[in-house]
Parts: sequence; structure tokens; C-alpha cells
Amino acid sequence: MRAAYVLYNGLTVLDFIGFYDALYRLRTMRFLPEFSFQLCAQTSQVQDEHGLTILTTPTETLRGFDLLVVPGGFATRTLRHDAAFIRWLRTAADCPLKASVCSGSLLLGAAGFLTGCAATTHPSAYEQLRPYCQEVRTDRIVDEGPVVTARGVSSSLDLGLHLVRRLAGEEAQTAIRRQMDYPYQ
Amino acid sequence: MRAAYVLYNGLTVLDFIGFYDALYRLRTMRFLPEFSFQLCAQTSQVQDEHGLTILTTPTETLRGFDLLVVPGGFATRTLRHDAAFIRWLRTAADCPLKASVCSGSLLLGAAGFLTGCAATTHPSAYEQLRPYCQEVRTDRIVDEGPVVTARGVSSSLDLGLHLVRRLAGEEAQTAIRRQMDYPYQ
Repeated sequence: MRAAYVLYNGLTVLDFIGFYDALYRLRTMRFLPEFSFQLCAQTSQVQDEHGLTILTTPTETLRGFDLLVVPGGFATRTLRHDAAFIRWLRTAADCPLKASVCSGSLLLGAAGFLTGCAATTHPSAYEQLRPYCQEVRTDRIVDEGPVVTARGVSSSLDLGLHLVRRLAGEEAQTAIRRQMDYPYQ
Repeated sequence: MRAAYVLYNGLTVLDFIGFYDALYRLRTMRFLPEFSFQLCAQTSQVQDEHGLTILTTPTETLRGFDLLVVPGGFATRTLRHDAAFIRWLRTAADCPLKASVCSGSLLLGAAGFLTGCAATTHPSAYEQLRPYCQEVRTDRIVDEGPVVTARGVSSSLDLGLHLVRRLAGEEAQTAIRRQMDYPYQ
């Protein structure tokens, strides 16, 4: 089980770190000892809008991963029109499970991954999401099987726990939720 | 208003990014346009246990900041006995508002900042916290005025919103909570 986390300049870091925290516990708490991830970017580091810098792995192709997760950020408003970025994202077309947080769904949409699906995003981006999917929903998590989208920023934690359940079951979700000290459902 | 975020190798990144997300919105949403922060470390970068690397500002002294926030992580179990680190943390003694997430309270405690206070930490660290404070509480946030401690990992978001309210009032908290799309209280 190899996950690709798609990072880029201008991401919202909590969109990323919420699911990141839930998912790495699949390995450390031995529910999926073989779980691994790669911080995939077109560059060797990414910055958020406030200068916080995270080192990344320059990744030519997103082919071959079992899970793809795309966080959001204000940069998505322009990035969805960036042909080179979207071409790169499309190399993940065969990935069997794709997910996004917040305006990350605009990127999944621009890559064509939401066609025929219901999806969600940050409430401020519902209108921008509409052209890319069949139906915009206001649910916190919209699970359409091969594509799962989550709402605004903090829903990243809920997405992480949702993916934990899909990948490793309810017992894993309960234990990881407790370890994260997350009392909310 | 200048905040020092204390980072170190072996931190839990969500302990940091939860409050980080709430607090930077004080500036971007213009509730405290002068709000700024520094990623303070003894090194120029820090890594979590999974290799995620964040660039930091090597900071000789923590003197002169208005707010200090310390995230947790498994490394705190040894770091609290690291004389050089604790001496460094003590340079923040005059900071009027100190806060921690998760086992970050063990570091505040080892620096002597919890003496006479009630405090909290991750439920797995209650016993380790006891010698450093007057009373260990199981509340999600324990606000003792100049020292605020939060419980486990995900309570970082709640701490961030609590500090937003203290620094900028309830209207700011409500607006930032909405922008974070965080429905929980």
C-alpha cells in the first residue's frame, strides 16, 4: 500500500497534515505495517502562503500508487488552469483510490477524475467545483468508491479517519481516533 | 504580536499545524493584521518520526516573544531531560502567554513553567505530567491565564481557536472556525 500525497506551492498545510496524521498511524500502530507514503511534488520543496516550507520528493510520474490524496489551498484557483500541472496529475489516472480535501477537489476535477461523480469542497468553492462533477454535495465526506472528497480545511482529519476505515476497518479507525485524541465523529 | 512556535526533531506535526492554521488567519482575515510568527528551533530544519522535514529559523533566544506555543511528540519523553534544550526553552520565561499541545506540556513542565498550575496533556502522558504541575486535568483545554495546555494531538485545532478568542475575541473565533470549516466546539 503506497500513497502519493500531492503537494504544491500555495497549499494549505492543515489540508495535508490532517489526513497525514491519521494515515501514518496505519503503519506505526501496525494495522497496515506495509503502508508507506511519498510527498510528491514537481519541485524539491513546497511553501504555503506564509512561508512554511516542507521538503518534498520531485516525482516525475504519479503512476503506480495505490492511493492519491490532494490537499487544497488558494493556489488551486490558478493551478487548475496550469496545463503542465494537470498533465502531471493525470499520470495518476489508474490509481484505484483518489481523495481530496477542500479545494483539492478542483484539481481532481480539472484532471477529469470527478466526471460522473458527486463531490464536495470548501463551502466557498461550491460554484467553482460544479463544472467538474455531476453533483456538488455539502456533506463533510463524499465517498463515491474510487473517489472520496472532503469539505473545508479541518475535514482533512475526518478524511484521514474515513480512509483508515476503508483501508483497515472500524477497529483501526476507533484506535487511531483515540490515539489522535479526536472526540468528534 | 509576535509568536514563537517551538519546533524540534521528533515533533508530531499535527500538534503544530492545528494551532498554526487557526492563528495565521488572525493576520490574513485582518483581526490582528500585525500578527507574526517564527518557526523557532535549535536547528535549521526539523523532522518528524516519518521523515517529514520542515525548514525552521535557528533561534538563539526565545526572549521577546508575546506568545510561545510548544507542540508535542514522542521525542518529548527524552527532550525533557535534555539540559541544553530546557535551558533554551527557559529563555522564554518572560513570555506572557505560553501554550502547549499534547506532550508539549512535559517540556513546559520541565522548564518550570507549570509550577502551581493545573495542566493537561495526551491521556497517555498524564502520569508523566504530574510531577511538573499542581493538578493534572482531563479537560480538552486548561486555561490558567499565562499558561494554556491542550490535550492530545487533534486538540491543537481547539487550542488555536481558544487562543484566537483570547487574542481577538469571539467574533474572530466564529469567523475563523467557519473558514477552517470546523463544526466542533
